[in-house]
Amino acid sequence: MSATDQTLADLGEFGLVDLVRTAADAPHVLLGPGDDAALVSASPAGVLASIDVAVEGRHFRRDWSSALDIGHKVAAANLADIAAMGGTGRSLLIGFCGPGDLPVSWVVGLTHGLVEEAAVVGAVVVGGDVTAAEQVVVAVSVLGDPGARVVRRSGARPGDVVAVAGRLGWAAAGLAVLTRGFRSPRAVVEAHRRPTPPYAAGPQAAAAGATAMVDVSDGLLADLGHVANGSGVHIDVRRDALEVPEPLQTVSAALGGDPEGFVLTGGDDHALAACFPSAPVPDGWRVVGSVHETGDPLGSVTVDGQAWTGAVGHQHFR
Amino acid sequence: MSATDQTLADLGEFGLVDLVRTAADAPHVLLGPGDDAALVSASPAGVLASIDVAVEGRHFRRDWSSALDIGHKVAAANLADIAAMGGTGRSLLIGFCGPGDLPVSWVVGLTHGLVEEAAVVGAVVVGGDVTAAEQVVVAVSVLGDPGARVVRRSGARPGDVVAVAGRLGWAAAGLAVLTRGFRSPRAVVEAHRRPTPPYAAGPQAAAAGATAMVDVSDGLLADLGHVANGSGVHIDVRRDALEVPEPLQTVSAALGGDPEGFVLTGGDDHALAACFPSAPVPDGWRVVGSVHETGDPLGSVTVDGQAWTGAVGHQHFR
Repeated sequence: MSATDQTLADLGEFGLVDLVRTAADAPHVLLGPGDDAALVSASPAGVLASIDVAVEGRHFRRDWSSALDIGHKVAAANLADIAAMGGTGRSLLIGFCGPGDLPVSWVVGLTHGLVEEAAVVGAVVVGGDVTAAEQVVVAVSVLGDPGARVVRRSGARPGDVVAVAGRLGWAAAGLAVLTRGFRSPRAVVEAHRRPTPPYAAGPQAAAAGATAMVDVSDGLLADLGHVANGSGVHIDVRRDALEVPEPLQTVSAALGGDPEGFVLTGGDDHALAACFPSAPVPDGWRVVGSVHETGDPLGSVTVDGQAWTGAVGHQHFR
Repeated sequence: MSATDQTLADLGEFGLVDLVRTAADAPHVLLGPGDDAALVSASPAGVLASIDVAVEGRHFRRDWSSALDIGHKVAAANLADIAAMGGTGRSLLIGFCGPGDLPVSWVVGLTHGLVEEAAVVGAVVVGGDVTAAEQVVVAVSVLGDPGARVVRRSGARPGDVVAVAGRLGWAAAGLAVLTRGFRSPRAVVEAHRRPTPPYAAGPQAAAAGATAMVDVSDGLLADLGHVANGSGVHIDVRRDALEVPEPLQTVSAALGGDPEGFVLTGGDDHALAACFPSAPVPDGWRVVGSVHETGDPLGSVTVDGQAWTGAVGHQHFR
């Protein structure tokens, strides 16, 4: 049997763990994969740690994205969480489940995607676990180093400006296209398959004095809602500050709907949204709104002073 | 609708994340759940890190174990990995998937089990992610502090003795009982539901000079196989050094089969097996074998000098 014919069931658990043992060659990795746990060095400021779970049919589809793309996408979601705290991801741990008839080549592709995306920020895969399940599930835990300061969701203050780094709405437009059976515009389909979070903008914002920050995974309004809620403030987004890039206009023209809806409520691009005490904001960040006092203990988010009446939040595709 | 009627789908993702945000109140937790990542302080010696995935129908059954038991079992598997490196678990990250009709009370029970088991070693849950999936999958990542030394699988040397701390075969006997539709002997069924790893024996062995150590999750012979392989040695287990506790004899008498099979090949008790340069071994450890030279580059394991001809390795129940 050649490697290309092999399935997860043929290979067995231990063979697959060997596949996931990639070269974890980085100065902070004191012990890589192969023991009951890895050992990594840590910053005296502590370790940022997060976990995300991606489920086939909900976060990705194997007929829409290659294994390599899915690896990139899953790693990006995790590394963006660390960037949103002002830090940099260093080490990934991969928990993988899949059906016994899954081709080994698919798992190898996924692993390569995870390793390649991690390498963008200098992170490596230090451990993993593999088991059989009915559905493909990829759980990734990421450890990272804090930046100059740790930035939370809860520090926004009235008078701050709200700014964004990275793309908004592209992945959601790509998902809309794929859902309708199309494969173009290619730029938005690629954005759905492989997001490009502005990783460096996280530590940059921390160093520049950001008061609050969040990873835009559920949509700009929904994620600013977490900041408004955590900080006890009202955030107003200015519609005239939003770019609606040409491919999003093309998708809206073809499929119907408001292109601003993609920008305001589309998730999965992993942009960063942050509050700063005053303009100007750092290079690469663009101001999209402002922070105000509120009497609402849960905080609130408006668009040009009005409640948004379109869809809010991340629309999973099923 | 009362809380007891609620399902995962009613509660929604954000409500469930709130449930998983347990009081992460420990001196090493600098920022607990609620942001994109947690921040924990780390030892100057580094961070031990591991991930394990437990899948319904493979690692647990909801009709055999309570949610509380499953939480204990999943946390124990992870915390034992850190103990096997000579360290102590400090922080857990929980990635949870389950069907939309899963009662919220089940997820609350699971979370309590995870939190309670973590508390046994002074660890806390610092983060989590929840998403919908067809099957219940619990991925847990654990971070821990190294002990006096980090002990790997690869350090066993000819002349060492092999010793075990903790139970062997109890969980496997419990699984055999449950698989046949019985619920007793109660002691072995409880051992399957809620293992009791000898956590403190890991740092104790590290301080006492253990040359190699492993968590017995797949069965004593299988896991000593990892040590033999990693160290390039031959390990011989002495049958007369093995205890076969009374409940295991009862199960074998009732169901047929060799009670030593449970002891030598049963997984899931999360005993620790370690090699030491010489006897006497620390209190609580019992010598079960010895380490020898081998010409086999993959290493080898025997029982009284003979290859084991019974089943080897962890028998998942499907």
